[in-house]
Amino acid sequence: MIPTLGVCYYPEHWQESEWSKDAAEMVAAGLTWVRIGEFAWSRIEPTPGQFEWDWLDRAIETLGNAGLKVVLGTPTATPPRWMLDKWPDMLAVDENGNPRKFGSRRHYCFSHQGYREESVRITSFLARRYGKNPHIHAWQIDNEYGCHDTIISYSAAAQKQFHIWLEQRYGTVAKLNEAWGNVFWSMEYDRFDQIELPNLTVTEANPSHRLDFHRFSSYQVAVYNRAQVEVLRQYSSAPLIHNYMGRILEFDHFEVGADLDIASWDSYPLGFLEDRVDADPEWKRHFAQQGDPDFQALHHDLYRAVGRGRWWVMEQQPGPVNWAPNNPAPLPGMIRVWTWEALAHGAEALLYFRWRQAPFAQEQMHTGLKRPDNKAAMGFAEAKQVALEIAEGIDTAPVKAQVAILFDYESAWAWRVQPQGENFDYFRVIFEHYKALRSLGLSIDFIDKGSPILENYKLILAPAVMHMSQAEIKRIQSHGATLILGPRSSSKTEHFAINSTNPILPGFNLEIDFVETLRSDTPRQLQRGGAVQYWQERIETDAPVLEIDNLGHPIRVGSDTTQYLAAWLDQAAMKRIYSELCNELSIDYTPLPEGVRVRDTQTHRFYFNYDNQDQSVNGVDLPPASVIWQSHSIDKG
Amino acid sequence: MIPTLGVCYYPEHWQESEWSKDAAEMVAAGLTWVRIGEFAWSRIEPTPGQFEWDWLDRAIETLGNAGLKVVLGTPTATPPRWMLDKWPDMLAVDENGNPRKFGSRRHYCFSHQGYREESVRITSFLARRYGKNPHIHAWQIDNEYGCHDTIISYSAAAQKQFHIWLEQRYGTVAKLNEAWGNVFWSMEYDRFDQIELPNLTVTEANPSHRLDFHRFSSYQVAVYNRAQVEVLRQYSSAPLIHNYMGRILEFDHFEVGADLDIASWDSYPLGFLEDRVDADPEWKRHFAQQGDPDFQALHHDLYRAVGRGRWWVMEQQPGPVNWAPNNPAPLPGMIRVWTWEALAHGAEALLYFRWRQAPFAQEQMHTGLKRPDNKAAMGFAEAKQVALEIAEGIDTAPVKAQVAILFDYESAWAWRVQPQGENFDYFRVIFEHYKALRSLGLSIDFIDKGSPILENYKLILAPAVMHMSQAEIKRIQSHGATLILGPRSSSKTEHFAINSTNPILPGFNLEIDFVETLRSDTPRQLQRGGAVQYWQERIETDAPVLEIDNLGHPIRVGSDTTQYLAAWLDQAAMKRIYSELCNELSIDYTPLPEGVRVRDTQTHRFYFNYDNQDQSVNGVDLPPASVIWQSHSIDKG
Amino acid sequence: MIPTLGVCYYPEHWQESEWSKDAAEMVAAGLTWVRIGEFAWSRIEPTPGQFEWDWLDRAIETLGNAGLKVVLGTPTATPPRWMLDKWPDMLAVDENGNPRKFGSRRHYCFSHQGYREESVRITSFLARRYGKNPHIHAWQIDNEYGCHDTIISYSAAAQKQFHIWLEQRYGTVAKLNEAWGNVFWSMEYDRFDQIELPNLTVTEANPSHRLDFHRFSSYQVAVYNRAQVEVLRQYSSAPLIHNYMGRILEFDHFEVGADLDIASWDSYPLGFLEDRVDADPEWKRHFAQQGDPDFQALHHDLYRAVGRGRWWVMEQQPGPVNWAPNNPAPLPGMIRVWTWEALAHGAEALLYFRWRQAPFAQEQMHTGLKRPDNKAAMGFAEAKQVALEIAEGIDTAPVKAQVAILFDYESAWAWRVQPQGENFDYFRVIFEHYKALRSLGLSIDFIDKGSPILENYKLILAPAVMHMSQAEIKRIQSHGATLILGPRSSSKTEHFAINSTNPILPGFNLEIDFVETLRSDTPRQLQRGGAVQYWQERIETDAPVLEIDNLGHPIRVGSDTTQYLAAWLDQAAMKRIYSELCNELSIDYTPLPEGVRVRDTQTHRFYFNYDNQDQSVNGVDLPPASVIWQSHSIDKG
Repeated sequence: MIPTLGVCYYPEHWQESEWSKDAAEMVAAGLTWVRIGEFAWSRIEPTPGQFEWDWLDRAIETLGNAGLKVVLGTPTATPPRWMLDKWPDMLAVDENGNPRKFGSRRHYCFSHQGYREESVRITSFLARRYGKNPHIHAWQIDNEYGCHDTIISYSAAAQKQFHIWLEQRYGTVAKLNEAWGNVFWSMEYDRFDQIELPNLTVTEANPSHRLDFHRFSSYQVAVYNRAQVEVLRQYSSAPLIHNYMGRILEFDHFEVGADLDIASWDSYPLGFLEDRVDADPEWKRHFAQQGDPDFQALHHDLYRAVGRGRWWVMEQQPGPVNWAPNNPAPLPGMIRVWTWEALAHGAEALLYFRWRQAPFAQEQMHTGLKRPDNKAAMGFAEAKQVALEIAEGIDTAPVKAQVAILFDYESAWAWRVQPQGENFDYFRVIFEHYKALRSLGLSIDFIDKGSPILENYKLILAPAVMHMSQAEIKRIQSHGATLILGPRSSSKTEHFAINSTNPILPGFNLEIDFVETLRSDTPRQLQRGGAVQYWQERIETDAPVLEIDNLGHPIRVGSDTTQYLAAWLDQAAMKRIYSELCNELSIDYTPLPEGVRVRDTQTHRFYFNYDNQDQSVNGVDLPPASVIWQSHSIDKG
Repeated sequence: MIPTLGVCYYPEHWQESEWSKDAAEMVAAGLTWVRIGEFAWSRIEPTPGQFEWDWLDRAIETLGNAGLKVVLGTPTATPPRWMLDKWPDMLAVDENGNPRKFGSRRHYCFSHQGYREESVRITSFLARRYGKNPHIHAWQIDNEYGCHDTIISYSAAAQKQFHIWLEQRYGTVAKLNEAWGNVFWSMEYDRFDQIELPNLTVTEANPSHRLDFHRFSSYQVAVYNRAQVEVLRQYSSAPLIHNYMGRILEFDHFEVGADLDIASWDSYPLGFLEDRVDADPEWKRHFAQQGDPDFQALHHDLYRAVGRGRWWVMEQQPGPVNWAPNNPAPLPGMIRVWTWEALAHGAEALLYFRWRQAPFAQEQMHTGLKRPDNKAAMGFAEAKQVALEIAEGIDTAPVKAQVAILFDYESAWAWRVQPQGENFDYFRVIFEHYKALRSLGLSIDFIDKGSPILENYKLILAPAVMHMSQAEIKRIQSHGATLILGPRSSSKTEHFAINSTNPILPGFNLEIDFVETLRSDTPRQLQRGGAVQYWQERIETDAPVLEIDNLGHPIRVGSDTTQYLAAWLDQAAMKRIYSELCNELSIDYTPLPEGVRVRDTQTHRFYFNYDNQDQSVNGVDLPPASVIWQSHSIDKG
Repeated sequence: MIPTLGVCYYPEHWQESEWSKDAAEMVAAGLTWVRIGEFAWSRIEPTPGQFEWDWLDRAIETLGNAGLKVVLGTPTATPPRWMLDKWPDMLAVDENGNPRKFGSRRHYCFSHQGYREESVRITSFLARRYGKNPHIHAWQIDNEYGCHDTIISYSAAAQKQFHIWLEQRYGTVAKLNEAWGNVFWSMEYDRFDQIELPNLTVTEANPSHRLDFHRFSSYQVAVYNRAQVEVLRQYSSAPLIHNYMGRILEFDHFEVGADLDIASWDSYPLGFLEDRVDADPEWKRHFAQQGDPDFQALHHDLYRAVGRGRWWVMEQQPGPVNWAPNNPAPLPGMIRVWTWEALAHGAEALLYFRWRQAPFAQEQMHTGLKRPDNKAAMGFAEAKQVALEIAEGIDTAPVKAQVAILFDYESAWAWRVQPQGENFDYFRVIFEHYKALRSLGLSIDFIDKGSPILENYKLILAPAVMHMSQAEIKRIQSHGATLILGPRSSSKTEHFAINSTNPILPGFNLEIDFVETLRSDTPRQLQRGGAVQYWQERIETDAPVLEIDNLGHPIRVGSDTTQYLAAWLDQAAMKRIYSELCNELSIDYTPLPEGVRVRDTQTHRFYFNYDNQDQSVNGVDLPPASVIWQSHSIDKG
């Protein structure tokens, strides 16, 4: 597989006279793709029903004729102001009951039926006009679902749709009362239309109520997206893509992704480090100009799964951004490192955001490949270098990983609803397991509950999955991998009650006696090194005990093929245990120095140095902010 | 006095087939009491006016026949959803003006007249049906007034009742304007109905306005509670109880308690430590599995006063809870320690919360004595051990304390309205005085302004009482105790103006020149050791000066019998001064190691070790998390 | 110039029998001025249209006859409650959409036309009655514009006026769309009345939208103030004053000040240190009883510019206040130090707030010169001492400073809208430049964009001015001073787009390649000492490079006469660079010990010791909390 590069472009932001020069320069820089159109609704349809296609026709023609492949965005993330005159109640409503007003973007509620129809309407016009256009090689639907906390809406439209969704799910309100345990505090309902959205309650609402509202809210995204998919499929055979964001957990990306052809995401390593990575200040200081060594890789692997193997980076940070608490510049070399990290994870294409820095409006301080004055910005040369390196012909077909982690959005909602301790967070649990594996030099896949399980997996982790059917566990086990469950896995029924019927560790009796959540300053040492942090279950089991804490409580139990972790372990403990498991399972691994990471493709091993110092591993010397690759034949020769 | 144990139980949460087994096990475990019914309104009256009594009849019969005494709760903390259809405006309103919605509990405004009538109505049905039932040995009215910040409501109903209350209090609006000093910023009113509730003002509202709103809000609780008292008294002679919470200060518990027969409270030592104790992180880390050594004891003593000697623990933490920022498990032994601490303070009964952990809804992660699968949970054996120890016949009649602290809810409101410094908090002032006395091994009583004063008191502290009449001070003095006033005592008139007429230190001239509030990092050393923290008054007085700071400012002044503290002192200073006073007043005291506490009954001395290390005091060796008692005859022998 | 002292007084708060005694004592204490009336509307017009003038007539007469000059306030900061009956929609609305209710002060929206008329009406009644009164020597209009965050209002009235303002500014909505770059996210408008206020948007609103709303909000203050100015000018020739506050940046004080005769401000050094100074906790601890050594001086200098040379302190902290997080007492001597600091900066008058501490309402814990019981409070003696020192005849005519800083309110709004990094704040940038200069013993002027530039300036700093026309830069340069621009100066067009046409460093090519904002823990060392903090621009320029960081990036570039700073420097770097510049420009300077400050008048040098230890400078020994002055002839003799 030979990857390609591209860039995001906004012809409507620039004089038409610049378009052809821009296109020529893109091609000269080695770029293949150009994404356009996703915020241009007010220029396409300035007045309801009155379209202005000419400029867009010419833009596509200009870019296409220059040799670029166009990704055309549907502009539904930015409905024009006149839409509000038509549908004043289409806005999402925040948890305090305030409408989230016009004036930026993503100002709509996914449940609003009127706006959903408008989205289909504009998409159908676009699809009909450009569905067969030879320059259109892919479509992007909407933009960054969930960005700016836009999945959950407490609007009247959401409440109405929630009632319908609940009635479809439960049939009768009696069954809902039973499923939710509404007897608990006399919370029983007589009619579906009595059920309010779970905000502004006196104290916490019923967790089953909250989890169902999360499920409903996620489903509304899938339905909304599907409506555009259906109309695009009618008129175009180009692949359909959405650009996801980092650490957005409010909707099930697997469900949305199932309707699309390619998953993509927007990768902003420095913004994410400041804004979305859980790490201590010293870590953030150390990697302030490089980004966290694992945060992007995790999303690459996750969205490869969401895209069933096909995935892109639709937006890549090209220099300082404008939206994090602090916005330093990448160290020289890091843009190339980030790009190769994505490609080594199997990205088919990577597009930089954006071609030229806009001198106006909200993102005027967000760098592009070009400065507002059209001179090359810091990222330009690095992007060009990668293009030249790709042109040398390296194949980046993804390796078959031996290790996988099960990722389950529903669990993210469940534990947000019921963290039980202030430090418990599903993404963080996954992130820390991923980080431990990756710091052992492993290449990792993600799977979800429905994923086909590859034969090559030797080790599968499924931490913190709230609910797993026995069939699902058996299905995973049947492929021969060792399965590590827990902490907290299978602890609930589908209705968010405590699981007491479904075996937690198949093949053994294992009961959760009770759960403890721990202050950050009270880790508990394991007898063999490392510690429990934040979460510890006291279990009773007849399974062999493989690991205990200093007081003798079982921490890891089970057989060669299926084990249960009764605690959230720190990095030291995880690295020790997972390296032992690798030894047992004959998985090659390489403990890496801080900041160094490795990723294998089918043919090559890539070494990435995120550190700001020279590092060395396996005899490979890595300057700061660098990437080096070797073919496996050489590497192992 | 021989104490008894019990448990909270929810027959409506379980299959009826389990009730009799549960009851038998309760009795076998040595339990006497079972509390039921307080959240069961939707099962008692599933449709307005349609009652289903059968199940409750059978539950009471089953429990009673097994030998248990039933505490029956009125279910008014959880009105069913249909109540909202009837009274859409019955919800409380938060300080931002948002209704606090249905979906959890305590979703009502105390001022709503319609809901108050509904509360009386359901209570009267319960009272008529079960008032003479031989198994009903006590009533609990409602549940945890004030939990989830539910006393203060900014609803239209509250505003209307506030107008009535103000008119009754002041007669004319001119008198209100005068009392509040409304001339200050042209805040004068022409009519009572112009007066808004003091939320969302541009800057702070008039403190007199705010204090009166606190008084009104507290009074609404008393009136609401009294309405149920009156109807229960008509039909039942069983004692009436409410279960208070920890560190809830928004209503005057003495006023509510005056209408009831027994005070009770819900004691969750680990949840409280994380959530409601002011302490530095190291302290919280050290006692994370034991709880603060004084927080529960303070409430035991306080609610003993509220109950005029009769008090219970209605809910006792039996293991990890679900609601604090972190929820660790008690150290083995602590549930027994907590139980004995309560009994040694004179609790007539202590009920564990709850019998069996509910596997569904909001509290599914809250442990019970039994696990959801009905196996014994961690607290079961300790509860049973205490039952056996009680059965040995120890008498826990409370000692006559020699030291008392005056507790005044109105002052808590006053200083919340006007802290003057970020660190000033009434509860904390009281807590730190209490902690200093208790770390000297003293048993302590609380009194309130109207309390009968016991002859045995040798020392009475009255810190931070905003307003004290001369009659009240004289009444206390007349019983012979040394009275320690200040800081901040008698600093205000009843209308929350600066007191300039009422002597602050009777018998002397004492004037507050000015007040300083201090940053946490600027303590001021006393000449004789310890320091001033947070609050210092500069006073002018002709009273003898007993203590000065390093700059020579008087800190403690007065006579043998009445003294004034012009500052909030740290623990080192308080312990030094109070041990000196004990020496002077011939009060026996024992300075205790950290984590060790002592409590005397009439016949015994109890030693409690809250530390996680062995401790020793007076030759008594205390393992971690342990309690040991000795009869006074032995102890002093 | 011989300065005068005075005091704020509220005759309506006291028995009329006390007025004449109070007046006599004021005079005896050496006070000249008494400010009254600014909160007395409910006593002047208790019922709409019904006036009670008698008491105010007598109060003015009593004070005037005692020899005091009266400053009469218009009472428009505190409209009576009946005003709300008349204009229920006159309240400001907060960013969450809630009206900011009656019950304290400043409860009006500047855009409300009805209330604006009411303000003119009450002012015209006052002006007609007292315009020629011989005791009225000045007027104060309203009180502390902007206090309690009262400039920005999201009311319907504000929205309506904003539409009018926008239409006047842009003419057509197409021009507005162009100016704001609304094409960016399809934010284009069809009509002015579609434009909402920029609160509660999904993510940040367009910065041009937000900046224009700041400009509009500031303009509303100027218009509101001007309406009162116009009516007062009709009836009175006494000077018109407003009392500004500290670190209020939401309106352009220069624009308001242009309509007034004298600027004044309310100086609360200890409250400000706790509440409004950016400093680390150790600094705040060290100066807790002295106040920041530069915060007041900065405002003295700033408001001297706002008043075009004429300025007062209208309210001076006389002891502990009531409104900061902590409220300690000034060290003995500090009230005198603060007073002389103001006078040495050219204050014509300084009034203490307030005469006697009010025992009631919101400010009852705010000290006055007198205690509530009328005894002298801590500030009384110090005020009297200053009065005696003034009486010795010292002239305090302001020196002609050699150094000036350009202050631009619009830039404060711009960088609040777009800080780009969490640490960037316009006031703080100015404050730190000021502090560096002042710690070199320099006397400093402020100028604004339109200020006449004095010939004596040798050095002018213009950091962080978002937009400067070439004409303005040339005008400043033409007077011969060395001009230091940057960081961030001239980075924007007037419409808040990136400036690409207006030269940033006149005479050279200088382009901003990109901007970095830095975490607090990542300073970057300069090669010659000191460090970059928070903000660094990477520039390309043909100007001589005067200063580089450790990686060789240019930090200071330019010529002898015009330079550009490409970074926000720390104190060490600034002091080094500015002392070098002083050497080059023959500006006398004196590096001062921590806590010591110097201010020159035309005739004297004043030394202030804010430290709590003895300090010494130039052979002058300064006890803690002291001020010493020497005539220049002696000083240099």
